[in-house]
Amino acid sequence: MSSPAPERKGQRTRQRILSAARQVFAEVGYEKATIRGIAATADVDKSSVIQYFGSKSNLFREAVHWRIPVDELTVEDPAETAENYLRGLLSGWAAEPDGPMAVLLRNSMTSEDALKLLREQVTDQAVSSVAATIDQPDARLRAALLSAVLLGIASQRYLLQMPDLAAASDEEIVALMAPLLTALISGENA
Amino acid sequence: MSSPAPERKGQRTRQRILSAARQVFAEVGYEKATIRGIAATADVDKSSVIQYFGSKSNLFREAVHWRIPVDELTVEDPAETAENYLRGLLSGWAAEPDGPMAVLLRNSMTSEDALKLLREQVTDQAVSSVAATIDQPDARLRAALLSAVLLGIASQRYLLQMPDLAAASDEEIVALMAPLLTALISGENA
Repeated sequence: MSSPAPERKGQRTRQRILSAARQVFAEVGYEKATIRGIAATADVDKSSVIQYFGSKSNLFREAVHWRIPVDELTVEDPAETAENYLRGLLSGWAAEPDGPMAVLLRNSMTSEDALKLLREQVTDQAVSSVAATIDQPDARLRAALLSAVLLGIASQRYLLQMPDLAAASDEEIVALMAPLLTALISGENA
Repeated sequence: MSSPAPERKGQRTRQRILSAARQVFAEVGYEKATIRGIAATADVDKSSVIQYFGSKSNLFREAVHWRIPVDELTVEDPAETAENYLRGLLSGWAAEPDGPMAVLLRNSMTSEDALKLLREQVTDQAVSSVAATIDQPDARLRAALLSAVLLGIASQRYLLQMPDLAAASDEEIVALMAPLLTALISGENA
């Protein structure tokens, strides 16, 4: 086997640093996290972290960036779209409890920079893009409420681990919530 | 005017310390908050804080205690009950952005003690007591989802100040969300 091309090795190192950064930002928070600590967790030199990301604030911004694949999730039938959002959320958070959205949300309670970034990302990635798929005059508010409901469920189930939500199955949650979210995005309120 | 009876003065001092404690816990977080700092904010001696509350951990527990007046909010018509929950939430958080629930939620992201307390309080005060009013086999999960939805909306609107939710009126939010919450508590899902 030949050794990997330099750009592929670079990509892998980048990903390793981003993943270590999420872990450290989740554990100690943005303020207390250091480039040195993140480099140690990623098992790379401090200089590599600086070379790839420049500053702690840039590294944070990239580590907690997420997007919702709204185009893939949106189909003709709003009931199916609502179910796609719910299942995407539940499987995404289950697979990666310290994923970009969780780390950003956790830090936004104590860091003003993280809070600004969260506002930007939720507004761009969740509200504006979802609102564009809702054919109602109050589309933006519907999308903002959808995002509040989904993040409320995800944060109470995964981040805060509320016993009743942690004990429920995905199927039980989807069965109760999908019709409600369908009403929200279709405009045919219950 | 006669001077107030000692027990009334004691009550006022107690309330002043609790209010100062919430302010300090909200601003600097549980870990960094000190009894000295809280005493200074309340304009009392450090020894008074210790006399009334014993320890920082006890003071935190009392400062972030909240209850939902489930009996008062629950009426015959589930649509009216759902609206009562929503309006109670929106007016409560608007009146007191650093209220007990907000301070507890904010701290639960970074303090394990706060997180345990939040789990206890949501389970006792929101899930168990609301579930007792829902005549459905999955009453606990319905109540837990109701609490996740309500806290999701409150935290995104008041704590995180998402622009679209902050700009909406109470009426607009109630109009869109009340029918959904009615479905959740009545079992007649959309």
